[in-house]
Amino acid sequence: MNTDIPGREQLLAGRSIIDLLVHRTPLHTSLSLDRLCGARLFFKCENFQKGGAFKFRGATHAVMTLSAKEAARGVATHSSGNHAQALALAARLRSIRAYIVMPENAATVKIRAVEAYGGRIRFCRPTLSDREATLAEVIEETAALEIHPYNDYRIIAGQASAAAELMEDSGPLDCLVAPVGGGGLLSGTILSKNCFSPQTLVYGAEPEMANDAWMSFQQKILIPVSNPQTIADGLRTSLGSLTFPIILEGAAGILTTSEEAIGKAMRLIWERMKLVVEPSAAVTLAAVMEHPKVFAGKRTGIILSGGNADLSRLPWSSGDIPAKT
Amino acid sequence: MNTDIPGREQLLAGRSIIDLLVHRTPLHTSLSLDRLCGARLFFKCENFQKGGAFKFRGATHAVMTLSAKEAARGVATHSSGNHAQALALAARLRSIRAYIVMPENAATVKIRAVEAYGGRIRFCRPTLSDREATLAEVIEETAALEIHPYNDYRIIAGQASAAAELMEDSGPLDCLVAPVGGGGLLSGTILSKNCFSPQTLVYGAEPEMANDAWMSFQQKILIPVSNPQTIADGLRTSLGSLTFPIILEGAAGILTTSEEAIGKAMRLIWERMKLVVEPSAAVTLAAVMEHPKVFAGKRTGIILSGGNADLSRLPWSSGDIPAKT
Repeated sequence: MNTDIPGREQLLAGRSIIDLLVHRTPLHTSLSLDRLCGARLFFKCENFQKGGAFKFRGATHAVMTLSAKEAARGVATHSSGNHAQALALAARLRSIRAYIVMPENAATVKIRAVEAYGGRIRFCRPTLSDREATLAEVIEETAALEIHPYNDYRIIAGQASAAAELMEDSGPLDCLVAPVGGGGLLSGTILSKNCFSPQTLVYGAEPEMANDAWMSFQQKILIPVSNPQTIADGLRTSLGSLTFPIILEGAAGILTTSEEAIGKAMRLIWERMKLVVEPSAAVTLAAVMEHPKVFAGKRTGIILSGGNADLSRLPWSSGDIPAKT
Repeated sequence: MNTDIPGREQLLAGRSIIDLLVHRTPLHTSLSLDRLCGARLFFKCENFQKGGAFKFRGATHAVMTLSAKEAARGVATHSSGNHAQALALAARLRSIRAYIVMPENAATVKIRAVEAYGGRIRFCRPTLSDREATLAEVIEETAALEIHPYNDYRIIAGQASAAAELMEDSGPLDCLVAPVGGGGLLSGTILSKNCFSPQTLVYGAEPEMANDAWMSFQQKILIPVSNPQTIADGLRTSLGSLTFPIILEGAAGILTTSEEAIGKAMRLIWERMKLVVEPSAAVTLAAVMEHPKVFAGKRTGIILSGGNADLSRLPWSSGDIPAKT
């Protein structure tokens, strides 16, 4: 057992920070979706979180637990998405600098959001190697501390708070479902289960088109995928060296879903629950619907991870669902 | 003063029914929209109401306050929209019959919803005269009681509960904004203000393309419009003989909005607040944005009346915004 993995004491200490700075998102339920799925579902609405996604939990926890000396150096990351906004916002709350490396083709709305939060953007070419090289340059120049989007125990401990709050509001759960990309949210969910509800089964929900977690879990070694094409753009990353062992030991399973099921689940959440969620969040409900036997009659918590959907490109109004290769 | 108009005692008695049977919807806020509008906004999320709209409040109040003898006759209405579902659901809660006259071209999803709630549907041709004639036939045959969607004090008193709850959760308000179609929600909002917060100014928000309330308010006589073309499909009806006098006496003003502003406001609510709302609900925010001087610095309650948007036809993804004539 790796003793660096955050335990009960660290999770509770983290909550004392998170409860002050992070929005406690509501739990929603839907009798109509309960009937459709044959289960009792509790949806944690992280689409209502600051920045529109759970990422603000981990970023806030990481930034606020830096020592004064560390914080003075500022923080840095590369991200085209929700982590960039979350880190910039968390850094502003502590009045420290945030250096964000973003690909030059990042969505304008995301660039504007990082700027609005006071993030200092350095653009790079849109390849992983160029992102990493540019981040290394920034860190070399500024001595800022890198805050990785998921492969960092401070981030994982922060993401754990979503499941902890969910279970406080839902009461006892048989199952918990979180989407899995890099694994920060899923491994945090497992840590919360371990500490607060060990009998609950935690499942990762993953697109078939980006099934590195499923493969890694089956074969018990870390198998990254490169450049997967799923509409669930938040789940295109692969597990990290810190998230994978927690998932391998603590997950009850990884459940994959088709692109069609993701689009259908997303539309159901919009239509029946009136919630704007992004495709990566809908992967959870898609997994419940595609694996009905796992959840039949079960009290099941579902983490709707975010709501930053592109309203101009909805999966049911265009050809955005990629063909299976 | 018309002594039939529901007063404080009736509104409070209504609440004792509504608190038991109707979902108490949450209040949401958005710092980003506050900054954009220069006001402090409190959004009452009736998109999360049972049936997806505030209509269930009035229908439940009307059905539950029938005498046993009246209830035994069943209830009837003509509606292609949210009132049909709401009345069918309320009737089921009291285990009485609901006869719903629907135009044969009504959306399949709405027909299915009425059926799912046990409503007995009679189809008619899609003209107002045919709807009224068919309803008269149904009432002649069944002796059912007509429950009009808005021109009925029992309905108005039920809709009043949305503003009452809003103010309980928001604290004191300078202004309240409700959309106005037939005027049930707006007149109910005025009754709640009169009883519980007389200093608050109540505004009706209305599409320019269906501005019968604005014209009627200016000229102090009821001026219906026929067949208006706004995307706010819930607001195409005209004021009634019971709703108009309450609005004329109690509204601080009727604020009209362009179709473009409605589409823009709807998109802002989806993007910034992650809420699925229908165009008729977004008319409220559109009015605040188009009349900024009225609301500058004001604590303002906004009733987001419903979330039954057609996800296949969004105003920003098609040519659905009609040209100004």
